[in-house]
Amino acid sequence: MLKIDAHTHIIPKKLPNWSDKFGYGDFIYLQHHKKGFAKMMRGNQFFREIKENCWDADIRLEEYKQFHTNVQVVCTIPVMFSYWAKPLDCLDVSKFLNDHIAELVKTYPKQYIGLGTVPMQDAEVAIQELERCREIGLVGIQIGSNINDENLNEEKFFPVFEACEKLGMAVLVHPWNMMGQKNMQRYWLPWLVGMPAETTRAICSFIFGGIFERLPNLRVNFAHAGGSFLPTIGRIQHGFDCRPDLVAIDNPVPPKNYIGKFWVDSITHDPMMLEYVMKMQGSAKITLGSDYPFPLGDLEIGKFIEDMNLPKEDIENIFYRSTLTWLNLNEKDFK
Amino acid sequence: MLKIDAHTHIIPKKLPNWSDKFGYGDFIYLQHHKKGFAKMMRGNQFFREIKENCWDADIRLEEYKQFHTNVQVVCTIPVMFSYWAKPLDCLDVSKFLNDHIAELVKTYPKQYIGLGTVPMQDAEVAIQELERCREIGLVGIQIGSNINDENLNEEKFFPVFEACEKLGMAVLVHPWNMMGQKNMQRYWLPWLVGMPAETTRAICSFIFGGIFERLPNLRVNFAHAGGSFLPTIGRIQHGFDCRPDLVAIDNPVPPKNYIGKFWVDSITHDPMMLEYVMKMQGSAKITLGSDYPFPLGDLEIGKFIEDMNLPKEDIENIFYRSTLTWLNLNEKDFK
Repeated sequence: MLKIDAHTHIIPKKLPNWSDKFGYGDFIYLQHHKKGFAKMMRGNQFFREIKENCWDADIRLEEYKQFHTNVQVVCTIPVMFSYWAKPLDCLDVSKFLNDHIAELVKTYPKQYIGLGTVPMQDAEVAIQELERCREIGLVGIQIGSNINDENLNEEKFFPVFEACEKLGMAVLVHPWNMMGQKNMQRYWLPWLVGMPAETTRAICSFIFGGIFERLPNLRVNFAHAGGSFLPTIGRIQHGFDCRPDLVAIDNPVPPKNYIGKFWVDSITHDPMMLEYVMKMQGSAKITLGSDYPFPLGDLEIGKFIEDMNLPKEDIENIFYRSTLTWLNLNEKDFK
Repeated sequence: MLKIDAHTHIIPKKLPNWSDKFGYGDFIYLQHHKKGFAKMMRGNQFFREIKENCWDADIRLEEYKQFHTNVQVVCTIPVMFSYWAKPLDCLDVSKFLNDHIAELVKTYPKQYIGLGTVPMQDAEVAIQELERCREIGLVGIQIGSNINDENLNEEKFFPVFEACEKLGMAVLVHPWNMMGQKNMQRYWLPWLVGMPAETTRAICSFIFGGIFERLPNLRVNFAHAGGSFLPTIGRIQHGFDCRPDLVAIDNPVPPKNYIGKFWVDSITHDPMMLEYVMKMQGSAKITLGSDYPFPLGDLEIGKFIEDMNLPKEDIENIFYRSTLTWLNLNEKDFK
């Protein structure tokens, strides 16, 4: 069976020294301090150690074999977004990352599918790069759950989503720049608590800001099973019902009506929660995801789903059909 | 059947002008601007309009009759915590609120159960008031999900929890001072997204900080079904497993081991989510809750649970037994 991992991250092995080039800012660079590993540095600050499966296409394919997974949807690592930089400098960074992914997709057309990154801090520049992404063979973009602390419903971001719909480019929303992170560094809480909240905030912004309503053909996937959105939909819907003066101010359609209209990935790390998401959302709107190659990801690429003894149709939906419909691609192109 | 609502809020009809008394700070006061209503003011800022069911004991009992609910566990409104104030001034505020609840419990011993509030910003003062709370007939305290942005695992708060265990005082953890609230005011997101994240942060702080481990007899209940903790336990457990160097630094026991050791209330607004919580946690650790009298609460006091056709034992657990064990009380005292 075709198995497509819809949520993985990749980065070029070598990055330019953008801080030197632009003369400001803590752009990310890589220190290849030992064989097979690199340190991601943000200015002089150590951000994270990564392994060669973060940049080596062949090692990735090799690691995926043991989980019978043929295809990877790749996008950059959220810390690379550089939304805080000057728009044209972020464009420069984005182009470098997007060209790398485009090259990969060209080399391995049946193994890799690419999503780009665009300077969301400037819609005009973002759309310019979005169009170029499409031309070089990427099928969508990954964006953050907020843009420099601003919510995705802000009108200034709307033209980018409008262009995505018009160009048929899919969107993956990934949590980053997590709420509350300054006050809960201990125990990795920005990743464990902040990230699911971020994704919830992003889905609420899409719904209450009327983005889904105004762009019915926009195809959006939310990371980590949509964060806490689906499990807290009772509270969110009740909030909409009891205080429409606060919640229904930009869109009169109830939040529950949007369930099943967007995609979420399967990263719950828990069969019981995945069952809940399936009951809510239907398997046709759940894409296999892993967050590979990071340790917090599902690095057995959906093995727990195989162990759930789901009906064949659900397995096929989750393992490839949902991703193909999200990205508007055909099964035959990967056989 | 006995039916106890374990999560409701109450406030005295008249509050002193603490800002005038202490000469600083935006303490809450009430403006009774029209019959049956009051404005909660924080300094000159309007915070929230409340109705007389927020302070009138008889109206509350009357409203509860239609939902066949005999008993209410009452505590203050989180905005009254005043953790930001000087400890002795907060003590003054706490005493006023606690005396009001103690008086209520004395007048209606079969209808009201009381939880106090204590100055968490100073453990010594907090414990002094905790002891007094016990003497005046309160059975526990309500605390915030963070104390002035600091997490509950901070060592300086531990003596308060230790004293709670020693004195047999229960704890209700309520979300407040929500992460990310500054950047997501629109659409009521601090309440819809921030609150479930706050409660998750609090449970993680109790677990990873080793509070449950060090105080096995401490009885703690978390509001709103524990926020997003139970639905995201897969991610939290996986984070603990894959990065113990970040997560297991203060307590080597896996987070899943604590499921069923604390209580959560039933406020999911959704039968499917409550089923999930029951499967995780067991009905013996789920207390009926409403967040009455606020609109975001379950103001039908668990009617959706009655409609779920649960086995009698589960209904009895949720409707009164779990609350009695959490608070160490006896059924016969309310008959």
